[in-house]
Amino acid sequence: MKGRTGATFASPITLSRQWLTGVTFPPERPLINVSQAAPVAPPPAAMLDEMARIVREDPDAHRYGPDLGLPALRAALAARWQQIHGGTVTAAQVAITSGANQAYCSATAMLCAEGDAVILPSPWYFNHRMWNDIAGIDTIALHTGDDLIPDVAAAAALITPRTRAIVLVTPNNPGGVEYPRAVVHAFYALAKARGIALILDETYRDFDSRNAPAHGLFVEEDWDQTLIHIYSFSKAYHIPGHRIGALASSPARLDEVEKFIDSVTICPSQLGQRAALWGLTNLDGWLADERAEILSRRAAVIAGFAPLAAQGWKLLGCGAYFAYVEHPFAMPSDTLAQRLVQEAGVLMLPGTMFTPPGDASGQRQLRIAFANVDTDGIAALFKRLLSYQP
Amino acid sequence: MKGRTGATFASPITLSRQWLTGVTFPPERPLINVSQAAPVAPPPAAMLDEMARIVREDPDAHRYGPDLGLPALRAALAARWQQIHGGTVTAAQVAITSGANQAYCSATAMLCAEGDAVILPSPWYFNHRMWNDIAGIDTIALHTGDDLIPDVAAAAALITPRTRAIVLVTPNNPGGVEYPRAVVHAFYALAKARGIALILDETYRDFDSRNAPAHGLFVEEDWDQTLIHIYSFSKAYHIPGHRIGALASSPARLDEVEKFIDSVTICPSQLGQRAALWGLTNLDGWLADERAEILSRRAAVIAGFAPLAAQGWKLLGCGAYFAYVEHPFAMPSDTLAQRLVQEAGVLMLPGTMFTPPGDASGQRQLRIAFANVDTDGIAALFKRLLSYQP
Repeated sequence: MKGRTGATFASPITLSRQWLTGVTFPPERPLINVSQAAPVAPPPAAMLDEMARIVREDPDAHRYGPDLGLPALRAALAARWQQIHGGTVTAAQVAITSGANQAYCSATAMLCAEGDAVILPSPWYFNHRMWNDIAGIDTIALHTGDDLIPDVAAAAALITPRTRAIVLVTPNNPGGVEYPRAVVHAFYALAKARGIALILDETYRDFDSRNAPAHGLFVEEDWDQTLIHIYSFSKAYHIPGHRIGALASSPARLDEVEKFIDSVTICPSQLGQRAALWGLTNLDGWLADERAEILSRRAAVIAGFAPLAAQGWKLLGCGAYFAYVEHPFAMPSDTLAQRLVQEAGVLMLPGTMFTPPGDASGQRQLRIAFANVDTDGIAALFKRLLSYQP
Repeated sequence: MKGRTGATFASPITLSRQWLTGVTFPPERPLINVSQAAPVAPPPAAMLDEMARIVREDPDAHRYGPDLGLPALRAALAARWQQIHGGTVTAAQVAITSGANQAYCSATAMLCAEGDAVILPSPWYFNHRMWNDIAGIDTIALHTGDDLIPDVAAAAALITPRTRAIVLVTPNNPGGVEYPRAVVHAFYALAKARGIALILDETYRDFDSRNAPAHGLFVEEDWDQTLIHIYSFSKAYHIPGHRIGALASSPARLDEVEKFIDSVTICPSQLGQRAALWGLTNLDGWLADERAEILSRRAAVIAGFAPLAAQGWKLLGCGAYFAYVEHPFAMPSDTLAQRLVQEAGVLMLPGTMFTPPGDASGQRQLRIAFANVDTDGIAALFKRLLSYQP
């Protein structure tokens, strides 16, 4: 195919699922699937009751809604960001999208014309790279070292007249690292000074281990001229199947984003938006418990990793939903990942899916989406990795 | 803004809603809104019960699902097309999308690179034009005459080496006309002979007034090498707020479509898909009644139009959700449409929103989305238009 999609690769999630085809997982060694950042447990029961009520009683939940989302949800999310970070965020600066991916696509479609460039720290979130390819955006890889933290001076050196944005994901997917506040602010200052956008994807913000806010960017004067903030409701309330995300920036930018949303999906799910609004209003306590559970799994990964480290594995990053690790074997990670399915009953994604083609570090790395399994599951996973010898 | 979205115009639906701002509609003359093809009545009660049950009982309805849709829904829709049109359609040839717009966007992103071209009969569906602009696709206007039926010889003359597809919408939005079976087949033969795609958007197929199938394209050998078929569940079951559409073509093309969907929305609403599947299985009788109601409104438009015709109005096309009319006044339709809001309490979209900039015919035309109002509403609308003098 010679169209836009021909410029990119197949979905890593779909591809990795194909690795399962024809493989038998015996009852005593069931598949441990840590490939996708997908909450497995259902939303809280009270939310399900509310959604069922809305389905029956609110006819607007089945009609088209405004392209940029329910006004009440936009206002509630604006108030939430203001409450957490300080500064000023208004409803007119917030758009609701059909998932955080659509927020990224619409933001870059607003910023970039054919051949423009966006800087992505590597390893990156593969859907960002895929969309850049489809949209004719040149992806400039900003290589991170073993600490997985991007360097602002290195980023500055990559900016050209075609560069329209730098993208940061914190807590990071796939790296799991939480970017220090000073790093986020330094990138904001760089973007502002160079007249480009800072796209800050905080899909996993609710599971940041730090109790202080991850940044204070909404306090900055005219923040919406530089910052494009992305969020997802999928992880917080376990509603990925309803596709609700969000984007915050200037109203003028949202006018452009609206054109993209109008053309591609018209509006986000009306029921999903009502669920998200109910969650914002009613689930702070539930979300705090959810965060505590994810943080306990994170602690289990860190504590349980020592025996693997003794065998040559390295834990490069761990936080939010992800551990990002280096394996000790003399084979590329995409080969290893497929063999782990067959020989150890473990599905995780290889670093090659998060790095530029041929990248040497990606061939040594694997992502573990540990939030999908509980602490017992993490122990079982590590036991299998410990005993695995290719 | 200098990005992709800067190449297109603001959403006509959003823009037209802004015309309502600050206008007072007295109780004796409430707004008649025939601007958007949006079912107003809720889905049938039995479907709401089923959706509420699914919300509570099916945890998969809240999880991610396959990018290309629920296997059972893909299979059911394939069987439906086969049952109606004959021929062979398999589940592997059907993808579920987040609305019919996303089906169009993903199809053209699969077919077209920057600067490639697509032929759109004019007047066209504005979101097709908007997406073409955003995606860097050159829109080649195929002007239709007063009968609004595109001419296949005229289309043939517009094909260049950059042309990747011809797009037909039948029943037509905005024109309301049902394309004769021979016209659809002639366009298919042209596309096949020239090695380009025929995108056939049948969003409104359930309200076609003809009892025979609108085409027999699924009978054609290797139809999936030429045809890309688009459908929407929004109108059939009154679920536009859940964003469920579909696309049928070759499995190889769907592999490309999947990259687009994965990057932009990951998967369609899981609950919406289950509602659509339940509708396909249980609502044939309900949909037949719905069609009869829409056809009765269509008949009311045609029968009620005579007095308007006597005043110089022309009914150019009428079918599915739309009447497309020519007005008798000496002003451009976008001016007239805004004055009709203020002076007659009627919101309809001007032909300028469906035609190339400066197109003379578009300035004389208006679209009436009559499916939104019942026969009494249509009578009230025509009464206001009859008494209107600018």
